[in-house]
Amino acid sequence: MSDEGPGFFADKHVAIFGLGLMGGSAARVLKGKCRRLTGIDPNPAVVQAALLQKVVDRADVQPGDLLVDVDLVILAAPVNSIVFLLSNLPSYCPNRAMVIDFGSTKKAICEAMRTLPYRFDPVGGHPMCGKETSGLENADPSLFKGAVFALVALDRTSPVARMTAEALVGLLGSHPLWLDAAVHDRHVAATSHLPYLISNALAFCTPVSAAPLTATGFASATRLAGTSPDMMMDVLQTNRDAILASLHQYRDHLAMLENLLSTGDLTQLRYLLEAGSENRNRIEMFSKGDTL
Amino acid sequence: MSDEGPGFFADKHVAIFGLGLMGGSAARVLKGKCRRLTGIDPNPAVVQAALLQKVVDRADVQPGDLLVDVDLVILAAPVNSIVFLLSNLPSYCPNRAMVIDFGSTKKAICEAMRTLPYRFDPVGGHPMCGKETSGLENADPSLFKGAVFALVALDRTSPVARMTAEALVGLLGSHPLWLDAAVHDRHVAATSHLPYLISNALAFCTPVSAAPLTATGFASATRLAGTSPDMMMDVLQTNRDAILASLHQYRDHLAMLENLLSTGDLTQLRYLLEAGSENRNRIEMFSKGDTL
Repeated sequence: MSDEGPGFFADKHVAIFGLGLMGGSAARVLKGKCRRLTGIDPNPAVVQAALLQKVVDRADVQPGDLLVDVDLVILAAPVNSIVFLLSNLPSYCPNRAMVIDFGSTKKAICEAMRTLPYRFDPVGGHPMCGKETSGLENADPSLFKGAVFALVALDRTSPVARMTAEALVGLLGSHPLWLDAAVHDRHVAATSHLPYLISNALAFCTPVSAAPLTATGFASATRLAGTSPDMMMDVLQTNRDAILASLHQYRDHLAMLENLLSTGDLTQLRYLLEAGSENRNRIEMFSKGDTL
Repeated sequence: MSDEGPGFFADKHVAIFGLGLMGGSAARVLKGKCRRLTGIDPNPAVVQAALLQKVVDRADVQPGDLLVDVDLVILAAPVNSIVFLLSNLPSYCPNRAMVIDFGSTKKAICEAMRTLPYRFDPVGGHPMCGKETSGLENADPSLFKGAVFALVALDRTSPVARMTAEALVGLLGSHPLWLDAAVHDRHVAATSHLPYLISNALAFCTPVSAAPLTATGFASATRLAGTSPDMMMDVLQTNRDAILASLHQYRDHLAMLENLLSTGDLTQLRYLLEAGSENRNRIEMFSKGDTL
Protein backbone atom coordinates (compact mmCIF):
# COMPACT_ATOMS: atom_id res chain seq x y z
CA MET A 1 0.00 0.00 0.00
CA SER A 2 1.17 3.48 -0.83
CA ASP A 3 2.03 5.81 2.03
CA GLU A 4 2.17 8.88 -0.18
CA GLY A 5 -0.73 10.35 1.75
CA PRO A 6 -3.34 12.86 0.68
CA GLY A 7 -0.69 15.51 -0.12
CA PHE A 8 0.63 13.57 -3.11
CA PHE A 9 -1.69 15.31 -5.61
CA ALA A 10 -1.51 18.79 -4.04
CA ASP A 11 0.63 20.19 -6.89
CA LYS A 12 -1.05 18.24 -9.69
CA HIS A 13 -3.70 19.06 -12.26
CA VAL A 14 -5.99 16.02 -12.58
CA ALA A 15 -8.55 15.60 -15.39
CA ILE A 16 -11.37 13.04 -15.35
CA PHE A 17 -13.12 11.94 -18.55
CA GLY A 18 -16.57 10.68 -17.64
CA LEU A 19 -18.42 12.01 -14.58
CA GLY A 20 -20.68 9.00 -14.06
CA LEU A 21 -20.73 6.81 -10.96
CA MET A 22 -17.00 5.95 -11.10
CA GLY A 23 -15.58 9.25 -12.39
CA GLY A 24 -17.94 11.29 -10.22
CA SER A 25 -17.07 9.29 -7.09
CA ALA A 26 -13.34 9.71 -7.78
CA ALA A 27 -13.90 13.46 -8.32
CA ARG A 28 -15.61 13.73 -4.93
CA VAL A 29 -12.49 12.23 -3.33
CA LEU A 30 -9.97 14.29 -5.34
CA LYS A 31 -11.74 17.67 -5.07
CA GLY A 32 -9.65 20.03 -2.97
CA LYS A 33 -6.75 17.58 -2.82
CA CYS A 34 -5.16 18.52 -6.17
CA ARG A 35 -4.00 21.80 -7.70
CA ARG A 36 -6.85 21.69 -10.20
CA LEU A 37 -9.61 19.16 -10.98
CA THR A 38 -11.07 19.21 -14.50
CA GLY A 39 -14.08 17.14 -15.58
CA ILE A 40 -15.07 16.25 -19.15
CA ASP A 41 -18.42 14.61 -19.86
CA PRO A 42 -20.32 14.41 -23.18
CA ASN A 43 -23.63 15.13 -21.41
CA PRO A 44 -24.22 18.92 -20.93
CA ALA A 45 -26.62 18.28 -18.02
CA VAL A 46 -23.93 16.30 -16.20
CA VAL A 47 -21.36 19.05 -16.84
CA GLN A 48 -23.78 21.64 -15.43
CA ALA A 49 -24.58 19.51 -12.36
CA ALA A 50 -20.87 18.87 -11.72
CA LEU A 51 -20.15 22.61 -11.79
CA LEU A 52 -23.18 23.54 -9.68
CA GLN A 53 -22.33 20.94 -7.04
CA LYS A 54 -18.63 21.89 -7.22
CA VAL A 55 -17.67 18.26 -7.87
CA VAL A 56 -14.83 19.60 -10.06
CA ASP A 57 -13.13 23.00 -10.47
CA ARG A 58 -13.85 23.24 -14.20
CA ALA A 59 -15.90 21.13 -16.60
CA ASP A 60 -17.01 20.98 -20.22
CA VAL A 61 -18.42 18.58 -22.81
CA GLN A 62 -15.17 18.80 -24.82
CA PRO A 63 -11.63 19.16 -23.49
CA GLY A 64 -10.86 22.24 -25.64
CA ASP A 65 -7.75 23.74 -24.03
CA LEU A 66 -8.73 22.64 -20.50
CA LEU A 67 -6.06 19.93 -20.51
CA VAL A 68 -3.05 22.21 -21.01
CA ASP A 69 -0.61 21.46 -18.14
CA VAL A 70 -2.56 18.38 -16.96
CA ASP A 71 -0.48 15.91 -14.90
CA LEU A 72 -2.84 12.98 -14.60
CA VAL A 73 -5.70 11.96 -16.91
CA ILE A 74 -8.32 9.51 -15.55
CA LEU A 75 -10.53 7.78 -18.12
CA ALA A 76 -13.78 6.63 -16.47
CA ALA A 77 -16.11 5.45 -19.23
CA PRO A 78 -17.33 2.26 -20.93
CA VAL A 79 -14.43 0.27 -22.46
CA ASN A 80 -14.95 1.25 -26.11
CA SER A 81 -15.29 4.92 -25.15
CA ILE A 82 -11.98 4.68 -23.31
CA VAL A 83 -10.34 3.17 -26.41
CA PHE A 84 -11.79 6.05 -28.47
CA LEU A 85 -10.62 8.65 -25.93
CA LEU A 86 -7.12 7.15 -25.99
CA SER A 87 -6.97 7.54 -29.77
CA ASN A 88 -7.83 11.24 -29.36
CA LEU A 89 -5.72 11.94 -26.30
CA PRO A 90 -2.68 13.22 -28.27
CA SER A 91 -4.85 15.98 -29.78
CA TYR A 92 -6.52 16.86 -26.42
CA CYS A 93 -3.35 16.97 -24.45
CA PRO A 94 -0.21 18.67 -25.79
CA ASN A 95 2.13 18.04 -22.85
CA ARG A 96 3.55 15.10 -20.89
CA ALA A 97 0.94 13.34 -18.74
CA MET A 98 0.23 10.20 -16.85
CA VAL A 99 -2.90 8.28 -17.92
CA ILE A 100 -4.96 5.75 -15.98
CA ASP A 101 -8.34 4.23 -16.82
CA PHE A 102 -11.17 2.71 -14.75
CA GLY A 103 -12.44 0.33 -17.50
CA SER A 104 -13.97 -3.09 -16.87
CA THR A 105 -11.67 -5.05 -19.22
CA LYS A 106 -7.96 -4.47 -19.64
CA LYS A 107 -6.59 -6.15 -22.79
CA ALA A 108 -8.20 -3.86 -25.39
CA ILE A 109 -7.46 -0.74 -23.35
CA CYS A 110 -3.81 -1.64 -22.67
CA GLU A 111 -3.33 -2.37 -26.38
CA ALA A 112 -4.67 1.12 -27.18
CA MET A 113 -2.42 2.60 -24.46
CA ARG A 114 0.58 0.94 -26.13
CA THR A 115 0.07 3.09 -29.25
CA LEU A 116 0.12 6.43 -27.35
CA PRO A 117 2.99 8.84 -28.11
CA TYR A 118 5.82 8.48 -25.58
CA ARG A 119 4.99 11.72 -23.78
CA PHE A 120 2.17 9.73 -22.17
CA ASP A 121 2.87 7.41 -19.25
CA PRO A 122 -0.05 4.94 -19.08
CA VAL A 123 -1.32 2.47 -16.43
CA GLY A 124 -4.39 0.26 -16.76
CA GLY A 125 -6.80 0.30 -13.81
CA HIS A 126 -10.04 -1.32 -12.65
CA PRO A 127 -11.67 -0.58 -9.28
CA MET A 128 -13.49 -3.74 -8.13
CA CYS A 129 -16.55 -1.95 -6.81
CA GLY A 130 -19.86 -0.71 -8.10
CA LYS A 131 -23.49 -0.03 -7.35
CA GLU A 132 -26.81 -0.99 -8.88
CA THR A 133 -27.36 2.65 -9.68
CA SER A 134 -25.27 4.76 -12.02
CA GLY A 135 -24.64 8.41 -12.85
CA LEU A 136 -23.18 11.43 -11.08
CA GLU A 137 -26.25 11.67 -8.85
CA ASN A 138 -25.21 8.39 -7.21
CA ALA A 139 -21.50 9.25 -6.99
CA ASP A 140 -20.16 8.56 -3.52
CA PRO A 141 -16.62 9.21 -2.25
CA SER A 142 -16.80 6.04 -0.12
CA LEU A 143 -17.52 3.84 -3.19
CA PHE A 144 -13.88 2.67 -3.46
CA LYS A 145 -13.27 2.14 0.27
CA GLY A 146 -11.89 -1.32 1.09
CA ALA A 147 -12.16 -2.54 -2.51
CA VAL A 148 -9.42 -4.18 -4.53
CA PHE A 149 -8.15 -1.90 -7.32
CA ALA A 150 -6.62 -3.93 -10.16
CA LEU A 151 -3.62 -2.26 -11.81
CA VAL A 152 -1.87 -3.27 -15.04
CA ALA A 153 1.58 -1.97 -15.92
CA LEU A 154 2.69 -1.85 -19.56
CA ASP A 155 6.32 -2.47 -20.52
CA ARG A 156 6.65 1.29 -21.00
CA THR A 157 5.04 2.26 -17.69
CA SER A 158 7.54 4.26 -15.60
CA PRO A 159 8.19 3.73 -11.86
CA VAL A 160 6.74 7.20 -11.25
CA ALA A 161 3.49 6.23 -12.98
CA ARG A 162 3.29 3.06 -10.87
CA MET A 163 3.82 5.12 -7.73
CA THR A 164 1.23 7.70 -8.81
CA ALA A 165 -1.29 4.92 -9.53
CA GLU A 166 -0.73 3.48 -6.06
CA ALA A 167 -1.06 6.93 -4.48
CA LEU A 168 -4.39 7.42 -6.29
CA VAL A 169 -5.62 4.00 -5.21
CA GLY A 170 -4.55 4.75 -1.62
CA LEU A 171 -6.32 8.11 -1.67
CA LEU A 172 -9.52 6.39 -2.88
CA GLY A 173 -9.23 3.95 0.04
CA SER A 174 -8.71 0.88 -2.16
CA HIS A 175 -6.02 -1.81 -2.19
CA PRO A 176 -3.76 -2.02 -5.27
CA LEU A 177 -3.38 -5.41 -6.95
CA TRP A 178 -0.92 -5.49 -9.86
CA LEU A 179 -1.59 -8.14 -12.47
CA ASP A 180 -1.37 -9.00 -16.14
CA ALA A 181 -4.11 -7.72 -18.49
CA ALA A 182 -4.95 -11.22 -19.80
CA VAL A 183 -5.10 -12.69 -16.28
CA HIS A 184 -7.33 -9.80 -15.18
CA ASP A 185 -9.71 -10.32 -18.08
CA ARG A 186 -9.92 -14.09 -17.55
CA HIS A 187 -10.62 -13.64 -13.82
CA VAL A 188 -13.32 -10.98 -14.24
CA ALA A 189 -14.96 -13.09 -16.96
CA ALA A 190 -15.61 -15.62 -14.16
CA THR A 191 -16.32 -13.24 -11.27
CA SER A 192 -18.20 -10.44 -12.99
CA HIS A 193 -19.19 -10.98 -16.64
CA LEU A 194 -20.54 -14.52 -16.28
CA PRO A 195 -22.51 -13.51 -13.13
CA TYR A 196 -24.04 -10.67 -15.16
CA LEU A 197 -25.15 -13.02 -17.95
CA ILE A 198 -26.61 -15.67 -15.65
CA SER A 199 -28.36 -13.06 -13.53
CA ASN A 200 -29.84 -11.40 -16.60
CA ALA A 201 -30.88 -14.76 -18.09
CA LEU A 202 -32.65 -15.64 -14.82
CA ALA A 203 -34.53 -12.34 -14.90
CA PHE A 204 -35.49 -13.02 -18.54
CA CYS A 205 -36.82 -16.52 -17.80
CA THR A 206 -38.95 -15.70 -14.75
CA PRO A 207 -42.67 -15.45 -15.50
CA VAL A 208 -44.19 -12.20 -14.22
CA SER A 209 -47.11 -14.24 -12.85
CA ALA A 210 -44.66 -15.70 -10.30
CA ALA A 211 -43.67 -12.23 -9.05
CA PRO A 212 -45.64 -12.38 -5.76
CA LEU A 213 -43.63 -15.49 -4.86
CA THR A 214 -40.23 -13.80 -5.14
CA ALA A 215 -38.30 -13.05 -1.95
CA THR A 216 -34.93 -11.50 -1.09
CA GLY A 217 -33.08 -14.46 -2.62
CA PHE A 218 -34.51 -13.75 -6.06
CA ALA A 219 -33.71 -10.04 -5.76
CA SER A 220 -30.13 -10.91 -4.86
CA ALA A 221 -29.70 -13.48 -7.66
CA THR A 222 -30.97 -11.01 -10.28
CA ARG A 223 -29.38 -7.84 -8.88
CA LEU A 224 -26.74 -7.68 -11.63
CA ALA A 225 -29.36 -8.10 -14.41
CA GLY A 226 -29.91 -4.37 -14.65
CA THR A 227 -26.25 -3.33 -15.08
CA SER A 228 -26.01 -0.68 -17.81
CA PRO A 229 -26.15 -2.41 -21.23
CA ASP A 230 -23.89 0.37 -22.60
CA MET A 231 -21.18 -0.75 -20.24
CA MET A 232 -21.82 -4.47 -20.60
CA MET A 233 -21.93 -4.61 -24.42
CA ASP A 234 -18.39 -3.18 -24.50
CA VAL A 235 -17.33 -5.74 -21.90
CA LEU A 236 -18.87 -8.65 -23.82
CA GLN A 237 -17.21 -7.46 -27.02
CA THR A 238 -13.73 -6.87 -25.61
CA ASN A 239 -13.62 -9.99 -23.39
CA ARG A 240 -15.56 -12.36 -25.62
CA ASP A 241 -13.24 -15.38 -25.62
CA ALA A 242 -12.75 -15.51 -21.85
CA ILE A 243 -16.50 -15.04 -21.26
CA LEU A 244 -17.40 -17.75 -23.77
CA ALA A 245 -15.01 -20.17 -22.04
CA SER A 246 -16.52 -19.41 -18.59
CA LEU A 247 -20.07 -19.61 -19.91
CA HIS A 248 -19.46 -22.92 -21.64
CA GLN A 249 -17.97 -24.51 -18.53
CA TYR A 250 -20.86 -23.14 -16.47
CA ARG A 251 -23.50 -24.56 -18.82
CA ASP A 252 -21.78 -27.96 -18.66
CA HIS A 253 -21.98 -27.90 -14.86
CA LEU A 254 -25.69 -26.93 -14.96
CA ALA A 255 -26.32 -29.77 -17.41
CA MET A 256 -24.67 -32.17 -14.96
CA LEU A 257 -26.88 -30.92 -12.08
CA GLU A 258 -29.95 -31.29 -14.33
CA ASN A 259 -28.94 -34.82 -15.26
CA LEU A 260 -28.40 -35.88 -11.62
CA LEU A 261 -31.76 -34.42 -10.60
CA SER A 262 -33.49 -36.00 -13.56
CA THR A 263 -32.05 -39.48 -12.90
CA GLY A 264 -32.62 -39.11 -9.15
CA ASP A 265 -28.95 -39.46 -8.14
CA LEU A 266 -29.47 -37.34 -5.03
CA THR A 267 -26.26 -38.46 -3.30
CA GLN A 268 -24.05 -37.16 -6.10
CA LEU A 269 -26.25 -34.06 -6.51
CA ARG A 270 -25.90 -33.22 -2.83
CA TYR A 271 -22.14 -33.73 -3.04
CA LEU A 272 -21.84 -31.18 -5.88
CA LEU A 273 -24.13 -28.66 -4.16
CA GLU A 274 -22.11 -28.90 -0.94
CA ALA A 275 -18.92 -28.44 -2.99
CA GLY A 276 -20.44 -25.29 -4.54
CA SER A 277 -21.29 -23.90 -1.13
CA GLU A 278 -17.80 -24.70 0.21
CA ASN A 279 -16.13 -23.09 -2.81
CA ARG A 280 -18.12 -19.94 -2.16
CA ASN A 281 -16.81 -19.82 1.42
CA ARG A 282 -13.26 -20.33 0.15
CA ILE A 283 -13.63 -17.51 -2.39
CA GLU A 284 -15.12 -15.19 0.22
CA MET A 285 -12.15 -15.88 2.49
CA PHE A 286 -9.69 -14.85 -0.21
CA SER A 287 -11.71 -11.98 -1.62
CA LYS A 288 -11.68 -9.46 1.20
CA GLY A 289 -10.04 -6.38 -0.19
CA ASP A 290 -9.88 -5.12 3.38
CA THR A 291 -7.66 -7.99 4.50
CA LEU A 292 -5.15 -7.85 1.61
CA MET B 1 -55.71 -8.91 5.37
CA SER B 2 -57.07 -10.22 8.62
CA ASP B 3 -58.19 -7.74 11.22
CA GLU B 4 -58.40 -10.32 13.99
CA GLY B 5 -55.67 -8.45 15.85
CA PRO B 6 -53.14 -9.71 18.36
CA GLY B 7 -55.83 -10.96 20.74
CA PHE B 8 -56.93 -13.74 18.38
CA PHE B 9 -54.57 -16.33 19.91
CA ALA B 10 -55.02 -15.23 23.55
CA ASP B 11 -57.08 -18.32 24.48
CA LYS B 12 -55.15 -20.76 22.29
CA HIS B 13 -52.41 -23.30 22.91
CA VAL B 14 -49.96 -23.13 19.99
CA ALA B 15 -47.25 -25.74 19.37
CA ILE B 16 -44.32 -25.27 16.99
CA PHE B 17 -42.36 -28.23 15.60
CA GLY B 18 -38.89 -27.01 14.66
CA LEU B 19 -37.27 -24.06 16.46
CA GLY B 20 -34.91 -23.07 13.66
CA LEU B 21 -34.90 -19.74 11.86
CA MET B 22 -38.57 -19.92 10.79
CA GLY B 23 -40.09 -21.67 13.82
CA GLY B 24 -37.94 -19.67 16.24
CA SER B 25 -38.88 -16.37 14.58
CA ALA B 26 -42.59 -17.26 14.72
CA ALA B 27 -42.17 -18.23 18.39
CA ARG B 28 -40.66 -14.84 19.16
CA VAL B 29 -43.78 -13.21 17.69
CA LEU B 30 -46.28 -15.58 19.37
CA LYS B 31 -44.69 -15.65 22.85
CA GLY B 32 -46.99 -13.94 25.33
CA LYS B 33 -49.78 -13.63 22.77
CA CYS B 34 -51.24 -17.14 23.21
CA ARG B 35 -52.47 -19.10 26.22
CA ARG B 36 -49.50 -21.43 25.95
CA LEU B 37 -46.59 -21.78 23.50
CA THR B 38 -44.95 -25.20 23.18
CA GLY B 39 -41.81 -25.88 21.16
CA ILE B 40 -40.59 -29.27 19.93
CA ASP B 41 -37.14 -29.62 18.38
CA PRO B 42 -35.06 -32.80 17.89
CA ASN B 43 -31.88 -30.99 19.00
CA PRO B 44 -31.50 -30.95 22.83
CA ALA B 45 -29.23 -27.87 22.70
CA VAL B 46 -31.92 -25.95 20.79
CA VAL B 47 -34.57 -27.02 23.30
CA GLN B 48 -32.37 -25.86 26.17
CA ALA B 49 -31.62 -22.51 24.50
CA ALA B 50 -35.31 -21.95 23.72
CA LEU B 51 -36.22 -22.54 27.39
CA LEU B 52 -33.35 -20.43 28.75
CA GLN B 53 -34.20 -17.53 26.43
CA LYS B 54 -37.92 -18.00 27.14
CA VAL B 55 -38.67 -18.21 23.41
CA VAL B 56 -41.46 -20.68 24.33
CA ASP B 57 -43.30 -21.61 27.55
CA ARG B 58 -42.40 -25.30 27.37
CA ALA B 59 -40.13 -27.31 25.10
CA ASP B 60 -38.82 -30.82 24.58
CA VAL B 61 -37.19 -33.03 21.96
CA GLN B 62 -40.32 -35.19 21.76
CA PRO B 63 -43.95 -34.08 22.09
CA GLY B 64 -44.74 -36.62 24.83
CA ASP B 65 -48.01 -35.36 26.34
CA LEU B 66 -47.18 -31.68 25.75
CA LEU B 67 -49.69 -31.48 22.90
CA VAL B 68 -52.79 -32.40 24.94
CA ASP B 69 -55.33 -29.57 24.41
CA VAL B 70 -53.28 -27.94 21.60
CA ASP B 71 -55.34 -25.66 19.30
CA LEU B 72 -52.84 -24.89 16.55
CA VAL B 73 -49.83 -26.94 15.42
CA ILE B 74 -47.19 -25.18 13.31
CA LEU B 75 -44.75 -27.41 11.40
CA ALA B 76 -41.54 -25.47 10.62
CA ALA B 77 -39.00 -27.96 9.26
CA PRO B 78 -37.54 -29.20 5.96
CA VAL B 79 -40.25 -30.60 3.65
CA ASN B 80 -39.60 -34.32 4.20
CA SER B 81 -39.50 -33.79 7.97
CA ILE B 82 -42.89 -32.09 7.77
CA VAL B 83 -44.29 -35.06 5.81
CA PHE B 84 -42.87 -37.38 8.49
CA LEU B 85 -44.31 -35.25 11.33
CA LEU B 86 -47.73 -35.27 9.63
CA SER B 87 -47.69 -39.08 9.55
CA ASN B 88 -47.04 -39.09 13.32
CA LEU B 89 -49.34 -36.25 14.27
CA PRO B 90 -52.33 -38.49 15.13
CA SER B 91 -50.22 -40.22 17.80
CA TYR B 92 -48.78 -36.94 19.17
CA CYS B 93 -52.06 -35.15 19.35
CA PRO B 94 -55.19 -36.83 20.70
CA ASN B 95 -57.67 -33.95 20.29
CA ARG B 96 -59.00 -31.71 17.54
CA ALA B 97 -56.45 -29.23 16.21
CA MET B 98 -55.67 -26.93 13.36
CA VAL B 99 -52.39 -27.61 11.50
CA ILE B 100 -50.33 -25.29 9.35
CA ASP B 101 -46.82 -25.77 7.91
CA PHE B 102 -44.03 -23.40 6.81
CA GLY B 103 -42.52 -25.78 4.22
CA SER B 104 -40.85 -24.67 0.95
CA THR B 105 -42.93 -26.85 -1.38
CA LYS B 106 -46.63 -27.52 -1.06
CA LYS B 107 -47.76 -30.50 -3.18
CA ALA B 108 -46.11 -33.29 -1.15
CA ILE B 109 -47.13 -31.66 2.15
CA CYS B 110 -50.75 -31.04 1.15
CA GLU B 111 -51.01 -34.66 -0.04
CA ALA B 112 -49.80 -35.81 3.38
CA MET B 113 -52.26 -33.41 5.06
CA ARG B 114 -55.09 -35.00 3.04
CA THR B 115 -54.52 -38.34 4.83
CA LEU B 116 -54.83 -36.87 8.37
CA PRO B 117 -57.78 -38.03 10.49
CA TYR B 118 -60.70 -35.62 10.30
CA ARG B 119 -60.13 -34.20 13.76
CA PHE B 120 -57.30 -32.24 12.15
CA ASP B 121 -58.04 -29.08 10.16
CA PRO B 122 -55.00 -28.47 7.89
CA VAL B 123 -53.77 -25.49 5.84
CA GLY B 124 -50.56 -25.39 3.77
CA GLY B 125 -48.33 -22.35 4.29
CA HIS B 126 -45.07 -20.88 3.02
CA PRO B 127 -43.66 -17.57 4.24
CA MET B 128 -41.74 -15.94 1.35
CA CYS B 129 -38.84 -14.72 3.45
CA GLY B 130 -35.52 -16.00 4.70
CA LYS B 131 -31.99 -15.17 5.66
CA GLU B 132 -28.53 -16.41 4.72
CA THR B 133 -28.13 -17.65 8.26
CA SER B 134 -30.21 -20.32 9.95
CA GLY B 135 -30.98 -21.61 13.42
CA LEU B 136 -32.69 -20.33 16.56
CA GLU B 137 -29.74 -17.99 17.24
CA ASN B 138 -30.71 -16.01 14.12
CA ALA B 139 -34.46 -16.05 14.80
CA ASP B 140 -35.95 -12.61 14.47
CA PRO B 141 -39.57 -11.59 15.07
CA SER B 142 -39.34 -9.09 12.20
CA LEU B 143 -38.36 -11.80 9.69
CA PHE B 144 -41.90 -12.08 8.29
CA LYS B 145 -42.69 -8.35 8.18
CA GLY B 146 -43.93 -7.18 4.79
CA ALA B 147 -43.41 -10.59 3.14
CA VAL B 148 -45.97 -12.51 1.12
CA PHE B 149 -47.21 -15.60 2.98
CA ALA B 150 -48.48 -18.24 0.55
CA LEU B 151 -51.47 -20.21 1.83
CA VAL B 152 -53.00 -23.36 0.34
CA ALA B 153 -56.47 -24.56 1.34
CA LEU B 154 -57.40 -28.24 0.95
CA ASP B 155 -60.94 -29.26 0.02
CA ARG B 156 -61.43 -30.24 3.65
CA THR B 157 -60.03 -26.99 5.12
CA SER B 158 -62.72 -25.27 7.22
CA PRO B 159 -63.56 -21.54 7.12
CA VAL B 160 -62.29 -21.29 10.73
CA ALA B 161 -58.92 -22.75 9.72
CA ARG B 162 -58.68 -20.24 6.86
CA MET B 163 -59.46 -17.41 9.24
CA THR B 164 -56.95 -18.69 11.81
CA ALA B 165 -54.26 -18.95 9.11
CA GLU B 166 -54.94 -15.35 8.06
CA ALA B 167 -54.84 -14.22 11.68
CA LEU B 168 -51.46 -15.91 12.15
CA VAL B 169 -50.12 -14.36 8.93
CA GLY B 170 -51.42 -10.96 10.06
CA LEU B 171 -49.79 -11.33 13.49
CA LEU B 172 -46.46 -12.17 11.80
CA GLY B 173 -46.81 -8.99 9.73
CA SER B 174 -47.04 -10.82 6.39
CA HIS B 175 -49.60 -10.65 3.57
CA PRO B 176 -51.68 -13.79 2.88
CA LEU B 177 -51.81 -15.03 -0.72
CA TRP B 178 -54.11 -18.01 -1.28
CA LEU B 179 -53.19 -20.25 -4.17
CA ASP B 180 -53.16 -23.78 -5.49
CA ALA B 181 -50.36 -26.15 -4.35
CA ALA B 182 -49.29 -26.99 -7.92
CA VAL B 183 -49.25 -23.31 -8.96
CA HIS B 184 -47.23 -22.46 -5.84
CA ASP B 185 -44.67 -25.18 -6.58
CA ARG B 186 -44.32 -24.17 -10.25
CA HIS B 187 -43.83 -20.50 -9.31
CA VAL B 188 -41.24 -21.13 -6.57
CA ALA B 189 -39.36 -23.48 -8.91
CA ALA B 190 -38.75 -20.37 -11.04
CA THR B 191 -38.30 -17.75 -8.30
CA SER B 192 -36.47 -19.73 -5.62
CA HIS B 193 -35.27 -23.23 -6.55
CA LEU B 194 -33.77 -22.38 -9.95
CA PRO B 195 -32.01 -19.30 -8.46
CA TYR B 196 -30.52 -21.58 -5.80
CA LEU B 197 -29.15 -23.99 -8.40
CA ILE B 198 -27.68 -21.34 -10.70
CA SER B 199 -26.18 -19.46 -7.76
CA ASN B 200 -24.61 -22.64 -6.40
CA ALA B 201 -23.34 -23.67 -9.86
CA LEU B 202 -21.70 -20.23 -10.25
CA ALA B 203 -19.98 -20.63 -6.88
CA PHE B 204 -18.81 -24.11 -7.94
CA CYS B 205 -17.35 -22.89 -11.26
CA THR B 206 -15.42 -19.86 -9.98
CA PRO B 207 -11.67 -20.46 -9.63
CA VAL B 208 -10.40 -19.52 -6.16
CA SER B 209 -7.45 -17.79 -7.87
CA ALA B 210 -9.96 -15.18 -9.13
CA ALA B 211 -11.17 -14.42 -5.59
CA PRO B 212 -9.38 -11.04 -5.24
CA LEU B 213 -11.30 -9.88 -8.32
CA THR B 214 -14.74 -10.51 -6.85
CA ALA B 215 -16.87 -7.53 -5.82
CA THR B 216 -20.33 -7.02 -4.35
CA GLY B 217 -21.97 -8.26 -7.59
CA PHE B 218 -20.40 -11.69 -7.21
CA ALA B 219 -21.38 -11.89 -3.55
CA SER B 220 -24.95 -11.06 -4.50
CA ALA B 221 -25.12 -13.53 -7.41
CA THR B 222 -23.83 -16.38 -5.20
CA ARG B 223 -25.64 -15.45 -1.97
CA LEU B 224 -28.14 -18.33 -2.27
CA ALA B 225 -25.37 -20.89 -2.89
CA GLY B 226 -24.98 -21.55 0.82
CA THR B 227 -28.65 -22.29 1.60
CA SER B 228 -28.88 -25.34 3.88
CA PRO B 229 -28.49 -28.52 1.78
CA ASP B 230 -30.80 -30.34 4.24
CA MET B 231 -33.58 -27.96 3.26
CA MET B 232 -32.74 -27.85 -0.44
CA MET B 233 -32.43 -31.60 -1.04
CA ASP B 234 -36.03 -32.02 0.19
CA VAL B 235 -37.09 -29.18 -2.09
CA LEU B 236 -35.31 -30.65 -5.13
CA GLN B 237 -36.86 -34.04 -4.43
CA THR B 238 -40.44 -32.88 -3.85
CA ASN B 239 -40.51 -30.30 -6.67
CA ARG B 240 -38.35 -32.12 -9.19
CA ASP B 241 -40.52 -31.87 -12.30
CA ALA B 242 -41.19 -28.13 -12.02
CA ILE B 243 -37.51 -27.43 -11.27
CA LEU B 244 -36.35 -29.55 -14.22
CA ALA B 245 -38.71 -27.65 -16.53
CA SER B 246 -37.41 -24.26 -15.29
CA LEU B 247 -33.80 -25.36 -15.46
CA HIS B 248 -34.16 -26.70 -18.96
CA GLN B 249 -35.74 -23.50 -20.25
CA TYR B 250 -33.02 -21.49 -18.49
CA ARG B 251 -30.21 -23.53 -20.05
CA ASP B 252 -31.77 -23.03 -23.49
CA HIS B 253 -31.76 -19.27 -22.96
CA LEU B 254 -28.12 -19.29 -21.82
CA ALA B 255 -27.22 -21.35 -24.91
CA MET B 256 -28.89 -18.70 -27.07
CA LEU B 257 -26.90 -15.91 -25.37
CA GLU B 258 -23.70 -17.94 -25.84
CA ASN B 259 -24.49 -18.48 -29.51
CA LEU B 260 -25.18 -14.77 -30.14
CA LEU B 261 -21.95 -13.77 -28.41
CA SER B 262 -19.99 -16.45 -30.24
CA THR B 263 -21.31 -15.43 -33.69
CA GLY B 264 -20.96 -11.73 -32.84
CA ASP B 265 -24.66 -10.87 -33.25
CA LEU B 266 -24.39 -8.02 -30.76
CA THR B 267 -27.65 -6.32 -31.82
CA GLN B 268 -29.76 -9.35 -30.98
CA LEU B 269 -27.69 -10.03 -27.85
CA ARG B 270 -28.27 -6.51 -26.58
CA TYR B 271 -31.99 -6.83 -27.30
CA LEU B 272 -32.24 -9.97 -25.14
CA LEU B 273 -30.16 -8.47 -22.32
CA GLU B 274 -32.34 -5.35 -22.27
CA ALA B 275 -35.43 -7.57 -22.22
CA GLY B 276 -33.98 -9.43 -19.21
CA SER B 277 -33.38 -6.18 -17.37
CA GLU B 278 -36.89 -4.92 -18.18
CA ASN B 279 -38.47 -8.18 -17.04
CA ARG B 280 -36.65 -7.84 -13.73
CA ASN B 281 -38.16 -4.37 -13.25
CA ARG B 282 -41.61 -5.72 -14.10
CA ILE B 283 -41.24 -8.57 -11.59
CA GLU B 284 -40.00 -6.21 -8.89
CA MET B 285 -43.04 -3.99 -9.47
CA PHE B 286 -45.43 -6.91 -8.90
CA SER B 287 -43.46 -8.57 -6.12
CA LYS B 288 -43.74 -6.09 -3.28
CA GLY B 289 -45.47 -7.91 -0.48
CA ASP B 290 -45.86 -4.53 1.19
CA THR B 291 -48.01 -3.17 -1.64
CA LEU B 292 -50.35 -6.16 -1.98
